[in-house]
Amino acid sequence: MTRRARKERLKRKDAKVEQSAFRQLKNPYKPFEILSDDQLGIIHESSMEILENVGIDVQDRNARTILKDAGFDVAEGSDRVRMDRDGVMVLVDKAPSSFTVHGRNPMRSVKGGDGYVMFSAVAGPPFGADLDSGRRAGVFEDTVKFLKLTQSLNILHLQGGASIEPTDLPPETRHLDLSLACARYLDKPWKPNFIGRERSLDAIEFAKILHGTDEAGLAKNPVYYCNTNTNTPLILDREIAQGVIELAGAGQVICITPFTLAGAMTPASLAGALAMQNAEALAGCAFVQAIRPGCPFVYGSFTMAVDMKSGSPTFGTPEFAKGAAATGQLARLYGLPWRSSNACTSCAPDAQAAYETQMSLWSAITAHVSVIYQGAGWLEGGLVGSFEKLILDAEMLQMFAAWMEPFEVSPEEIGLATIAEIGPGGHFLGTAHTMERYENAFYRPLVSDWNNFENWRDAGARDAAQRANGMWKRLLDEYEQPALDPAVDEELKAFVAKRKEACGVAAA
Amino acid sequence: MTRRARKERLKRKDAKVEQSAFRQLKNPYKPFEILSDDQLGIIHESSMEILENVGIDVQDRNARTILKDAGFDVAEGSDRVRMDRDGVMVLVDKAPSSFTVHGRNPMRSVKGGDGYVMFSAVAGPPFGADLDSGRRAGVFEDTVKFLKLTQSLNILHLQGGASIEPTDLPPETRHLDLSLACARYLDKPWKPNFIGRERSLDAIEFAKILHGTDEAGLAKNPVYYCNTNTNTPLILDREIAQGVIELAGAGQVICITPFTLAGAMTPASLAGALAMQNAEALAGCAFVQAIRPGCPFVYGSFTMAVDMKSGSPTFGTPEFAKGAAATGQLARLYGLPWRSSNACTSCAPDAQAAYETQMSLWSAITAHVSVIYQGAGWLEGGLVGSFEKLILDAEMLQMFAAWMEPFEVSPEEIGLATIAEIGPGGHFLGTAHTMERYENAFYRPLVSDWNNFENWRDAGARDAAQRANGMWKRLLDEYEQPALDPAVDEELKAFVAKRKEACGVAAA
Repeated sequence: MTRRARKERLKRKDAKVEQSAFRQLKNPYKPFEILSDDQLGIIHESSMEILENVGIDVQDRNARTILKDAGFDVAEGSDRVRMDRDGVMVLVDKAPSSFTVHGRNPMRSVKGGDGYVMFSAVAGPPFGADLDSGRRAGVFEDTVKFLKLTQSLNILHLQGGASIEPTDLPPETRHLDLSLACARYLDKPWKPNFIGRERSLDAIEFAKILHGTDEAGLAKNPVYYCNTNTNTPLILDREIAQGVIELAGAGQVICITPFTLAGAMTPASLAGALAMQNAEALAGCAFVQAIRPGCPFVYGSFTMAVDMKSGSPTFGTPEFAKGAAATGQLARLYGLPWRSSNACTSCAPDAQAAYETQMSLWSAITAHVSVIYQGAGWLEGGLVGSFEKLILDAEMLQMFAAWMEPFEVSPEEIGLATIAEIGPGGHFLGTAHTMERYENAFYRPLVSDWNNFENWRDAGARDAAQRANGMWKRLLDEYEQPALDPAVDEELKAFVAKRKEACGVAAA
Repeated sequence: MTRRARKERLKRKDAKVEQSAFRQLKNPYKPFEILSDDQLGIIHESSMEILENVGIDVQDRNARTILKDAGFDVAEGSDRVRMDRDGVMVLVDKAPSSFTVHGRNPMRSVKGGDGYVMFSAVAGPPFGADLDSGRRAGVFEDTVKFLKLTQSLNILHLQGGASIEPTDLPPETRHLDLSLACARYLDKPWKPNFIGRERSLDAIEFAKILHGTDEAGLAKNPVYYCNTNTNTPLILDREIAQGVIELAGAGQVICITPFTLAGAMTPASLAGALAMQNAEALAGCAFVQAIRPGCPFVYGSFTMAVDMKSGSPTFGTPEFAKGAAATGQLARLYGLPWRSSNACTSCAPDAQAAYETQMSLWSAITAHVSVIYQGAGWLEGGLVGSFEKLILDAEMLQMFAAWMEPFEVSPEEIGLATIAEIGPGGHFLGTAHTMERYENAFYRPLVSDWNNFENWRDAGARDAAQRANGMWKRLLDEYEQPALDPAVDEELKAFVAKRKEACGVAAA
């Protein structure tokens, strides 16, 4: 499909469900700061002491070799790696302050960092849910629906690979089915499964075919946003390390996110959780730069507090918000792009889900987040990919995109002459100044209902979740699969079949 | 009741519905800024040109005399007053940067401005609503329930007088019934009805009796937060001006809020609406300072955008949020405390209501708002006082109070020694550092449900609004009327009866 044909198709789509256009977002405002310079310094200093004196357990031998070769102190006969601050900082300095991740459609390539921000659909929930059928174990059919919706919603830039985990597919080859589905239903970039060496090599081979390129091309124009985590406190897991070695080796965008659950995996204080987060994220950054200097790295943050009653994690709380704001300052201190989440604790797509989501989003966006991972569809602490929440989140993200449109202030925009002309007691609806701005002056909603009570009641008195239910179905009806060169599709299919055989499972 | 007895009663209350303690709030962070200095300058300059060249229609003769005596250009035989910038600025400079409004219980007195912030219940909706009975015309019974809930919810500092307008009471004497109800059911400060001279004088006499003081005492310790508005564009209404003359004359806290509906009452641009808002708010401030120099004045902001489809106002939109942030900068430019709203457009206490509310709150609070008027219970563009929304808002406000708790960062708080002791792969739940912080480390919710799916489902799978429904009933059950000296109560009753007679209506 030509670029022009694509543009026209996008326009046609816009004529159906009204939504804001796909575009690169940038935060034009000064970042909000929650910590003083002194406080920032104490957190930095503490994380350096953790890395130097406590160290981190790196459970993969090759990873330890890489770190040893980079000059760090690897204990004989143990996983423990102690990292001196100078060594860490020299490596961290090699990471770029922004990155671009490329879609197979070049119009879908997006930038993160230096104020640029991208939004991703939720990734990884083992359950799916909608208002019609309730909550169920993740199945491939739901995974595909979420892929189609991610493609259709202009406000989303990235997919997490599986917004609902397809637990009905064999785990050994699931990553291959997912890659093929992402390649077909999306022309936006996504996060591959890169747990362990084999899956990671599959992801790289797959990308070469899809993008018609080689190692050098992939490294020049990264196509994967590779999100993973440490096992807090202070463990880098074997299979995760292996995946990072391969994908960072291939020059893809790597995000390492410490799982800092304050009160359980870290001390029961926000400052303690942040010191731990900072130690692990910087260790991850140093590791990635030791693998491939200059590799795009995203400082991951997911600091949350434990509910002291139940021991389970809570999201979208005041602590979650404060942690995100502080992370923005830490990431800027090191000149790194960073990631936060649109997370909530609520079990329903209700008012609680919305206010928790907003606590997550405001704190991250005002602090110049680069990637909102888990950006849309997350419910129930991340256990559920919710179809209605996806739509509600898309509305909220659209609102932030509008909020980030630069504030226009000029005498023309103010309309002083019109004010003088109308004078006290007049009305501005019919003025030329208004007529010129009529259509695009203000935000137009996706699923918010701005009707008055009588119209809202007469239309069925549906709440926002009920309207979202209608909206995702409409989007699925309107979904148009982005064209893929049949030869490429064939080659991808053959690759998947071959790899499935090698994994001992018959090709589908 | 003694102070101690009151304290103990409050403690007992806390043992019932668990909520955060009543306290003065202060924002410890640097304010978020959305405008550049240049942009701020253009808005200021434009508003000065509006006041100088267009002028404002002041529909009350006494008010015009006051402005004329202050040196402004009052047109012969017309309402039009043109205000030169120097004259305006000399008066604006007389207004204090913060104020205190006093409750009849001195523990309920609160400060606004210079980073201090107070939260008010919704004021003025003609309708009430709850999940049981739906939406209905406001009745005194609902008004009283809201007063009791305002008293019970520790996060609320102010009442707007009638969160649901008692349309079943005669309008001529409704203000007297309301004053008596506020005096009895609240020990927190409230907003009086001060539309027109008579009602304003009634409010002042009533306060003297309730607080056992005289004119000088009232002016020294203001007891009323007097919120009113201009009739945008550029009209100061007669009865409003009369009320301001009396209440500012009595040294009470005055807030004048331009009704700047962008696209209808102002040009269809945020910058145009803000220039208009700034002109009217500063004219109001100058007017108040001309009445009584040094009188506490709050810069009111309510800039919203019209829905270009229906012509009705929209709240909690990206424009609403940007307007609030910009207002914070304008108010700081003049050294004035300022007011914003917790407003939403949604007709239901659903996800839309929550995300619109959050857009309103985050933008105001990060920009150092002094008063969140319409802070809890607002639904449907302000037409409805909602019992469930009141509880949801109280939760959101509590979360902001926790967010504003200063960020604690110190080596002890971080717990470096504990991190070293636990090391990689350990768990922090049982450590002494956690045990010490266990109970107060993290926010505890009011109505948010943090249960896992199974527990939530087994408890009835109630959404946030349904849980809020149970919560307000429980709070009403637990409500304890604050003691009022019977002699004062008698005197207030007699005053109300006398004034009702004078208004030609038999005393109740």
